[in-house]
Amino acid sequence: MTLRVDGERLWRRIEDLAEIGAVEGPDGERGCARLALTDADRQGRDLVVTWMRDLGLVVEIDEIGNVFATRPGTDPDLPPVMTGSHVDTVRTGGRFDGNLGVLAGLEVVETLIAEGVHTPRGITVALFTDEEGARFPPDMLGSLVYVGGMALESALDVRAVDDDARLGDELIRIGYAGSRPVPAAQYPHAYVELHIEQGPILEDEGITIGVVEGVQGISWTELTLTGRSAHAGTTPMRLRRDPVLAAARIVDGVRTIATDLGGDQVATVGRFETHPDLVNVVAQQVTLTVDLRNTSEAALRTAEARFRDLVTRVTAAEGVSVHERTLARFEPVDFDPSMIDRVEAAASALGCSTRRLPSGAGHDAQMLARVCPTAMIFTPSVGGLSHNIAEYTEPSDVAAGADVLLHVLLDLARES
Amino acid sequence: MTLRVDGERLWRRIEDLAEIGAVEGPDGERGCARLALTDADRQGRDLVVTWMRDLGLVVEIDEIGNVFATRPGTDPDLPPVMTGSHVDTVRTGGRFDGNLGVLAGLEVVETLIAEGVHTPRGITVALFTDEEGARFPPDMLGSLVYVGGMALESALDVRAVDDDARLGDELIRIGYAGSRPVPAAQYPHAYVELHIEQGPILEDEGITIGVVEGVQGISWTELTLTGRSAHAGTTPMRLRRDPVLAAARIVDGVRTIATDLGGDQVATVGRFETHPDLVNVVAQQVTLTVDLRNTSEAALRTAEARFRDLVTRVTAAEGVSVHERTLARFEPVDFDPSMIDRVEAAASALGCSTRRLPSGAGHDAQMLARVCPTAMIFTPSVGGLSHNIAEYTEPSDVAAGADVLLHVLLDLARES
Repeated sequence: MTLRVDGERLWRRIEDLAEIGAVEGPDGERGCARLALTDADRQGRDLVVTWMRDLGLVVEIDEIGNVFATRPGTDPDLPPVMTGSHVDTVRTGGRFDGNLGVLAGLEVVETLIAEGVHTPRGITVALFTDEEGARFPPDMLGSLVYVGGMALESALDVRAVDDDARLGDELIRIGYAGSRPVPAAQYPHAYVELHIEQGPILEDEGITIGVVEGVQGISWTELTLTGRSAHAGTTPMRLRRDPVLAAARIVDGVRTIATDLGGDQVATVGRFETHPDLVNVVAQQVTLTVDLRNTSEAALRTAEARFRDLVTRVTAAEGVSVHERTLARFEPVDFDPSMIDRVEAAASALGCSTRRLPSGAGHDAQMLARVCPTAMIFTPSVGGLSHNIAEYTEPSDVAAGADVLLHVLLDLARES
Repeated sequence: MTLRVDGERLWRRIEDLAEIGAVEGPDGERGCARLALTDADRQGRDLVVTWMRDLGLVVEIDEIGNVFATRPGTDPDLPPVMTGSHVDTVRTGGRFDGNLGVLAGLEVVETLIAEGVHTPRGITVALFTDEEGARFPPDMLGSLVYVGGMALESALDVRAVDDDARLGDELIRIGYAGSRPVPAAQYPHAYVELHIEQGPILEDEGITIGVVEGVQGISWTELTLTGRSAHAGTTPMRLRRDPVLAAARIVDGVRTIATDLGGDQVATVGRFETHPDLVNVVAQQVTLTVDLRNTSEAALRTAEARFRDLVTRVTAAEGVSVHERTLARFEPVDFDPSMIDRVEAAASALGCSTRRLPSGAGHDAQMLARVCPTAMIFTPSVGGLSHNIAEYTEPSDVAAGADVLLHVLLDLARES
């Protein structure tokens, strides 16, 4: 008989974790608000770590707060296989993004323990710090530091976009400033991450398992536009230097860039803050962010160049000065072909329909891909919704994804 | 010899009042933040009321918190002449807007007391509640309630745009919920208000005294646009319902309406708030305000109609729903021709250059114009700046404006 996870046990853990930082929508949707390194994030981590310890796993925390729970293998000389994801969310996030990957990893380990299955290589379940980057940019910060892509000191000095708190201070405050050194001294044999698609493709096509080929490149820019605050009633239009107008034209122009380039290109202005933000005052300053993504590095560079032209043109026309800051820049990532094949084969062997696709979102897996063979498994997202409290994946799809994860990890853990 | 105010004494009071809620700009500019019915507003009022009492004036507070300080006339049967303005400011306001009118009124009274000049009619110096409307819309709320244009109960129930506090509760909290009934039982013989121009015209033309012919009509609308929150990386452009994009196109369209209509038309989006306001999330909701003003009611209606078309078109194209709320709507006001002539004659007699002009901003005077003959005197604003911490009027212009106010009030107070 083919080994399977306990889908109900996994679903219960997803629901229990979702109680922490729970937010409810107008139509009864149940989402989560656990921004990185807040009290809610601490409580979420504490619950997961309790589960890890209850399973007898060896729990280690590194200097950037990443948590690693390992079930040792029978051969202590072989590096373990790793799975995992994150449990921080955006401010109005869902219950599956990230959480599924961590809890499915735990479920795989619990299944192997319950069935008495032992493997030469250990299996490590990782919970990476600040994957969303919603409070502390850039996103995937914890896994980036883990693989040596960002210096620990720089990461600890990152400031929160909401309350200007220092990341290092918040790590200490919530009790997750660990001692395992970063970058890691030894990397895993391979890394496999289960995640919800966060897009509409699998649901549209009635597919159960997405076999992820790679991750889009990401370019995040913060613009601060400074004009001249003035009285809304007495300042003639020709004398205005209005940063709200310039910012609005940038928002419109960014949409045009995305639709002109077409294909995979997406572009979003998600933050837009006005100062002093009063009805009868021409604003002094606007801060906005632009998120550009593409699976092709060349296309992403074209979008960035057009964006820079747009900003120069619009701000000059309105007499507004501009300060530009890069919040994140990651090139597109291609996963290891043999790992992609492995996921596809495991899913097919379990009788699941599959489809290859790129990931539109960034994931910790793209950081791990720098240091070991890496793959990702996607499960469908109802309505394609994510970063939304209405985010949902059917229990049967959750179980199917975890089963695929189980078999890919088991195969890898048996390799010598 | 012609009677003159003590310009230095007036200037000191302006500086002393400006210390309360003082804010400093990057280049050392000194502005004020005394939003209506905050602790800073209370402190500003307390200081002015202390000065009123020190001059022996009869101080009364009405049910909406307007303060009236009267120097009685020799004939108690004659209604007094009134002057005044407000001491609340916008969040990043200047030291002259409103404050000048109240303190110049006090200076006129102190000059008459010092010179032993007695008049048949009394002179009342008024301080009206919440002229700016920046915290509690609509603007000119206190004087509107005073003249019976808004029911007391509705005004007390207005909620603050920042912290949702109830106006009536805040009035009680700061100790300015008075007992004099509104609307007033008896209106003044006439009302004259001294104010800074808040625009560039007088300075551009080298004119000392602006003779105000009337006030622009004002139309304030708040729009709440609701789209669909979604993941910025995985949601294809064609599936987006992005309220930031729709709001941006409204901002741009509003500018086009103003420049197309030309003439006096001004249009401003001063508030623009995004939720959840995160870099990697297509927003769920945007709230923005649109401020339209014109000296012609017909032209203002044209602007409003075009604005409504714009909102319908833009929100339909993006699949975003819209909730519209009128925050304020005032028709243009024409001041009494004989009062306009009086201001012009008094300024000329004092040797001041004059120019007739409309007011681009709303003022308490436009409410008083509903119940008694009313006029306004403008002094120049350096750089045309107002609702800006760099707002400034030269001491010589402040004194000239107060001298004109003195003589207009004196003439009116001597009328039988």
